Amino acid sequence: MTETFEFPPDDPRPSGWLDADAIARVRAAVPVLYVDAVPVRVDDSGDVVAVGLLLRVTPEGVMTRALVSGRVMYHERVRDALVRHIEKDLGPVALPIIPAAPQPFTVAEYFPTPGVTPYFDARQHAVSLAYVVPVTGDCSPQHDAIDLAWVTPEEAVSEAVQVEMHGGSGFLLRQAMAHVGRAV
Amino acid sequence: MTETFEFPPDDPRPSGWLDADAIARVRAAVPVLYVDAVPVRVDDSGDVVAVGLLLRVTPEGVMTRALVSGRVMYHERVRDALVRHIEKDLGPVALPIIPAAPQPFTVAEYFPTPGVTPYFDARQHAVSLAYVVPVTGDCSPQHDAIDLAWVTPEEAVSEAVQVEMHGGSGFLLRQAMAHVGRAV
Amino acid sequence: MTETFEFPPDDPRPSGWLDADAIARVRAAVPVLYVDAVPVRVDDSGDVVAVGLLLRVTPEGVMTRALVSGRVMYHERVRDALVRHIEKDLGPVALPIIPAAPQPFTVAEYFPTPGVTPYFDARQHAVSLAYVVPVTGDCSPQHDAIDLAWVTPEEAVSEAVQVEMHGGSGFLLRQAMAHVGRAV
Amino acid sequence: MTETFEFPPDDPRPSGWLDADAIARVRAAVPVLYVDAVPVRVDDSGDVVAVGLLLRVTPEGVMTRALVSGRVMYHERVRDALVRHIEKDLGPVALPIIPAAPQPFTVAEYFPTPGVTPYFDARQHAVSLAYVVPVTGDCSPQHDAIDLAWVTPEEAVSEAVQVEMHGGSGFLLRQAMAHVGRAV
Repeated sequence: MTETFEFPPDDPRPSGWLDADAIARVRAAVPVLYVDAVPVRVDDSGDVVAVGLLLRVTPEGVMTRALVSGRVMYHERVRDALVRHIEKDLGPVALPIIPAAPQPFTVAEYFPTPGVTPYFDARQHAVSLAYVVPVTGDCSPQHDAIDLAWVTPEEAVSEAVQVEMHGGSGFLLRQAMAHVGRAV
Repeated sequence: MTETFEFPPDDPRPSGWLDADAIARVRAAVPVLYVDAVPVRVDDSGDVVAVGLLLRVTPEGVMTRALVSGRVMYHERVRDALVRHIEKDLGPVALPIIPAAPQPFTVAEYFPTPGVTPYFDARQHAVSLAYVVPVTGDCSPQHDAIDLAWVTPEEAVSEAVQVEMHGGSGFLLRQAMAHVGRAV
Repeated sequence: MTETFEFPPDDPRPSGWLDADAIARVRAAVPVLYVDAVPVRVDDSGDVVAVGLLLRVTPEGVMTRALVSGRVMYHERVRDALVRHIEKDLGPVALPIIPAAPQPFTVAEYFPTPGVTPYFDARQHAVSLAYVVPVTGDCSPQHDAIDLAWVTPEEAVSEAVQVEMHGGSGFLLRQAMAHVGRAV
Repeated sequence: MTETFEFPPDDPRPSGWLDADAIARVRAAVPVLYVDAVPVRVDDSGDVVAVGLLLRVTPEGVMTRALVSGRVMYHERVRDALVRHIEKDLGPVALPIIPAAPQPFTVAEYFPTPGVTPYFDARQHAVSLAYVVPVTGDCSPQHDAIDLAWVTPEEAVSEAVQVEMHGGSGFLLRQAMAHVGRAV
């Protein structure tokens, strides 16, 4: 689960944004609801031909790959949170096809304690509804991402890609590929 | 489950088509694999705003409403059968978004004996994988259909629409609307 | 979504319980994660033969029917929250079969504003992962419930039962019955 | 997909059984509907703790591991086919918990041509609805199986187990483990 730009300094904060203190209090009290989106390109038969992964460099200089991920805000629908985070990470013309049904392909439970589940987030207990989301427009990395790489499903589950994913997002990516029937 | 034009007289029959005798033998021996597609229009958040229903008139002059439905052929992938039947019923520029994952929202079991399940097909035992399929292009009724009507999810589950659906397709439509979280 | 006894006065409060002030702060800040369980009896083929509904009387003397529902606590897995709430509402020997997979059949988004979704909760924005859960043991109403009634799937979706359910839980129950293929 | 004992010589053949000629004709004409069951042991929270794999020795003396798998017969419900094949492979007191909902976790399309999908069956085009099925009773290998081995989810996806599975059943097993959130 990636750090998200929840407070862009040049934007007015819409209702639902929280200041750092409020987030800290919430994170200590309850699981925080997230969405994870696996952006994919599909062919005319719906078959996944490519998976989009965000490349970021950590303050320590380590390259990481990430899915689209972020918090669901107060009074925001899950489907609107998906739109918002995809636009935030892939740009305003990614043209995602948000799933018609709210049923996620899985629920990823990120615990602050390693080993409880395959997912880990040192900052918080986050519970994330995970969706595979086809994007049909132009995607470009935003904010802190230095690149958006499109890989095949087979590459997505390969060791080379998996070692660059953190906190269980590589596991979630493999679950997504298993769900679409392409690779495990 | 609607009668489908499996043998258009002016088309060459691709591999996988069966003659009437062969179909009769198969129908008496095993369950026949089908797909059902509920064509929908969605907004930018993926929310279903309209459902497409085919209108047909039976030989007895009764108006019926139907989903897109048809057989999966030998050596045909389920996702290719979805494309083929949507093109057959909604035209070549319907531009469907075929689901990336093969998991259907339900499996409809049409029995030749009424009452075993909510679905009924006098001709055969058909087992149908059911999907909600957003269409993004122009749709027009083909072949035997006299119209394609777009109704709201609320209208789709209304008594007025339900009484014009047969063989459990009205039940399946309501399951689809329940699955997308819009109406039951 | 029913009021839940989150603070039974005679129980030690395990880690994860919040005091009223903390809950109020959280509820004003973020969506709160819930689980909804539809307790069912199934036959040897897994077919749902009965649905368990809790009967409660509101302070105003109105009888209501409810599903098993409650909050997921900090550092609690979703599957453990399901076990806890089923034991809380149906007793310690209900012997639920918790789903092996975390994929819910739907996600119910309860908004404090009516009309945003089919679900409503005046107290909060709650997002609930909904599961159908077979129970194999003895169930008895606990705490504030005056009865646990087993109804058929057809009765569950009937007008008589639906009018006694509130906040969209009747809608969710019908979605559950549609999901198991029994009734809509 | 394993060869199944469809015609036990000492059993009366119920309606739905086909003779060898009829099966050959059907297999050349249409996709054949199957079910695949991944038998699992779960703990009180529904978490998968073990997976049951059938061990068989081929006529060539090669050891293979297999899931429970078999054809859906004419006029048989999918859930009844699941019960029948689990009893056939795991014995009469396996006490399976058949899923309440017909939605499979995936659909495995076995093609007679390698490479079309991850699944392969030289005999036929089979389309299989795949379910994870908890078993609560005593299981013992039947007929042609020489053993039933219980392995952990981690072992199930390991190379050592995967190389002994054939026709894509290892792939399906990994999809099942991904679906229950345990291993990929």
